[in-house]
Amino acid sequence: MTLNPSNGIDTRESLDPDDWGAMRALAHRAVDDAMDYLEQVRERPVWRPTPEHVAAQFARPLPKEPEGAERAYAQFRELVLPYQLGNTHPRFWSWYMGAGTPFGAVADLLASTLNPNMGGGNHVGNLVERQVIDWCKEIVGFPATGSGLLVSGGSMANFVGLTVARNVHAGVDVRTKGVGAIAKPLVFYASTEVHSCVQRSIEVLGLGSDWLRQVPVDSNYRIDISALKVMVAQDRAAGRVPACVIGNAGTINTGAIDDLAAIADLCAQEKLWFHVDGAIGAVVGLSAEHAPLVHGIERADSVAVDLHKWMQIPFEAGCALVRDRGAHYRAFTLTPDYLEHQSRGLASGDLWFSDYGPQLSRGFRALKVWLSFKEHGLARYGRLIARNIALAEELARIVRGNPHLELMGMGNLNIVCLRFNPGGVDEKALDALNEELLLRLHESGIAAPSYTKLNGKYCLRVALVNHRTKSEDLRVFVDAALRMGNDLRNSR
Amino acid sequence: MTLNPSNGIDTRESLDPDDWGAMRALAHRAVDDAMDYLEQVRERPVWRPTPEHVAAQFARPLPKEPEGAERAYAQFRELVLPYQLGNTHPRFWSWYMGAGTPFGAVADLLASTLNPNMGGGNHVGNLVERQVIDWCKEIVGFPATGSGLLVSGGSMANFVGLTVARNVHAGVDVRTKGVGAIAKPLVFYASTEVHSCVQRSIEVLGLGSDWLRQVPVDSNYRIDISALKVMVAQDRAAGRVPACVIGNAGTINTGAIDDLAAIADLCAQEKLWFHVDGAIGAVVGLSAEHAPLVHGIERADSVAVDLHKWMQIPFEAGCALVRDRGAHYRAFTLTPDYLEHQSRGLASGDLWFSDYGPQLSRGFRALKVWLSFKEHGLARYGRLIARNIALAEELARIVRGNPHLELMGMGNLNIVCLRFNPGGVDEKALDALNEELLLRLHESGIAAPSYTKLNGKYCLRVALVNHRTKSEDLRVFVDAALRMGNDLRNSR
Repeated sequence: MTLNPSNGIDTRESLDPDDWGAMRALAHRAVDDAMDYLEQVRERPVWRPTPEHVAAQFARPLPKEPEGAERAYAQFRELVLPYQLGNTHPRFWSWYMGAGTPFGAVADLLASTLNPNMGGGNHVGNLVERQVIDWCKEIVGFPATGSGLLVSGGSMANFVGLTVARNVHAGVDVRTKGVGAIAKPLVFYASTEVHSCVQRSIEVLGLGSDWLRQVPVDSNYRIDISALKVMVAQDRAAGRVPACVIGNAGTINTGAIDDLAAIADLCAQEKLWFHVDGAIGAVVGLSAEHAPLVHGIERADSVAVDLHKWMQIPFEAGCALVRDRGAHYRAFTLTPDYLEHQSRGLASGDLWFSDYGPQLSRGFRALKVWLSFKEHGLARYGRLIARNIALAEELARIVRGNPHLELMGMGNLNIVCLRFNPGGVDEKALDALNEELLLRLHESGIAAPSYTKLNGKYCLRVALVNHRTKSEDLRVFVDAALRMGNDLRNSR
Repeated sequence: MTLNPSNGIDTRESLDPDDWGAMRALAHRAVDDAMDYLEQVRERPVWRPTPEHVAAQFARPLPKEPEGAERAYAQFRELVLPYQLGNTHPRFWSWYMGAGTPFGAVADLLASTLNPNMGGGNHVGNLVERQVIDWCKEIVGFPATGSGLLVSGGSMANFVGLTVARNVHAGVDVRTKGVGAIAKPLVFYASTEVHSCVQRSIEVLGLGSDWLRQVPVDSNYRIDISALKVMVAQDRAAGRVPACVIGNAGTINTGAIDDLAAIADLCAQEKLWFHVDGAIGAVVGLSAEHAPLVHGIERADSVAVDLHKWMQIPFEAGCALVRDRGAHYRAFTLTPDYLEHQSRGLASGDLWFSDYGPQLSRGFRALKVWLSFKEHGLARYGRLIARNIALAEELARIVRGNPHLELMGMGNLNIVCLRFNPGGVDEKALDALNEELLLRLHESGIAAPSYTKLNGKYCLRVALVNHRTKSEDLRVFVDAALRMGNDLRNSR
């Protein structure tokens, strides 16, 4: 062992490989495995359970001694690779998830290699992120002067917008004094269909979910504007402080889009903050045909945009947009001595994204968005968004045309709720039958819808976000659902 | 153009490559470029500015038409790759950042290829994350029954712990009623050296930073326990509600570690929540020699652990640990119909990490931690942690032994604050001289310390977190600092 002569510190060991050639070879194998995985995705089942003997391997204690990259990678291939959630598969339609892309994955290799901290400093990554935020503004029709931040996804994008809304409308310096110093309760409004992450933000922000008014929806699951106006007026009359309306651009249950222009009008009139949860639909404007659906989104004070859903960027990627840059900055900035910015050198520059959100250290998620937008161009995303909507319409037609299927709900977008209903079965039995049908679809590996309840009835929910889905996938699903549904009905 | 005969939907276009062979070849080139970048890191300057003609390229509007992966990658190589922050370099010691590893970057390629959503569901990724959290508990001596969540880093890990602390001590159902319903102000305590992200969490949570008491520190920058006791007693006497003490396991300025055992005693006695910001030092227990420094951390109610700092995982990776699993769950869980868990199929399983934090969709950051811990074994991390501390001691010895350098501050860990001080220069001029010296060090590309003020004096701050740093790097830095410092002094 060669020791440093001056003090005995052995500095030969590091976390870099002893043998760079071997690490490079391993990385090339990882690329081939990754490309095989994605190229052959259609040939595999959507999902399969993790066997118990595999699950048991994840209870082992902290590895003290090196197993080495080779052995770790072999375990990855054996234990991890085969038992995935399945959202890369063309017949995965659960919840609301993107499917990723091969170049998006390569981008994450590059981002983690360069490994910059995107909290601030003078380096090119900040320019990449600024440009990606500028592009997101263009997508939703926000002014170029608006502010933004890349975040982990829709939940955090909503959180950032609602934090600014709280601070602007508090009427006190809420950062120093706290919510307890606000004289009268701040009230937020959203339809009953709003995503649960909005409630969670309201709770985290100390506002209390009792002050998130649940506004009723119409038969298309859109917010009832008249009811909203009445609630705002009642709160004002009762001495409370209406602060913010959250509009849905695509609800999670059915893809319904609120009348955003009407909400914008109301907010302008009543001087309320207008926030849009656009996790699903903020990007729908990329399709000229469907852009009118989100008319009014460009008037919002803040918008939550999701990039790992319909834009198919690998997890995690979202963007918070805030019209008023100063308000956005004032909601989060804190600059202690050790973060003070310099005039030159690596701690200079005017882009310190840590001033605009809850994270100080931040990863280079901007790179995968930047590379993917360049790879495909936004017109292609627009075509694929339109196609997903057309596929949803196609599925709805198939369901309507089949006497054993019932269309349960459909917004203007890409989410179809349906159930197997051969007739002559009561509601309770239909719920049980459809729940079992869903589980068998998953277990067969044929297709992966999720489920929800609409008006208390159990539905299969098909969210067609996937860029790999083709018409034939819908037919494979419908054929399997009918066959399994009839088997189930006959066996009862 | 072949259209689907039934309805005219052309489903041949997707975000997958037309030519998988070409994408595969590009990915292999990306691997070679990534490995070259890391293998040759020592041969490059730590940092260099982004030229204006390069910066100008990032103002172009949204790309409408495809540029293709090849062209996008060429732009990455030309515009992005060369102008990095530099924290992969052995002489980057700014702020407090990890340097990443090649296998960690490969792990992110794999994670983004499989692209699971780690919010929940039944898939093996959850088992990987659970195991990584179990390992983090082992590292800090937490009980196996404790709870945890992988998060983006130290800021969010502190945020999660402090959210649970707020909710547990509110005395009301703060999630529904809000902070405004808390009868008497909740008071949090931390030393004046606490990281700014703690203040930001307190602000976001609606508690108000006025209620974060800044407790004085002793000459070693450790919290003054007597002063803390007095403050708690005074707040109680004044009818306020002491709720939580935040202990520092490694302050950002100097690496100081509070007397965690004494804080634990006080919290037990006063029934306060004991949170530890261990972003820097929670992992110091991996070195048996230094483990006594963080004695008492294992008694905390919650701990923020950072994995992209001393554990060198690529950004972003942190872990929030919470002793009381029920309290952790109750602080965040929300399960609407569309997320209701099933008994079988892909929506079954008992691991829904979205119940434990602010994000619903979550990326597979667990994989890079899992693979890296297996690759190296925790004993190696312990040796490298001890080595960084030894290097800090070596640098302090060099500084003490040189009449033109002054040691300004040093905790027990790996952060050394120093300045060039040849004698005969007044304080104001010393500040200016050292600020210019720092900028020239950055601009030369030789070494990248950061800066802070200690007792109002400008210091170069060397945070030795880097697994690539050797003794010779310290000498290169000291020689350059002395040469540049004397040049500066002589030219004034």
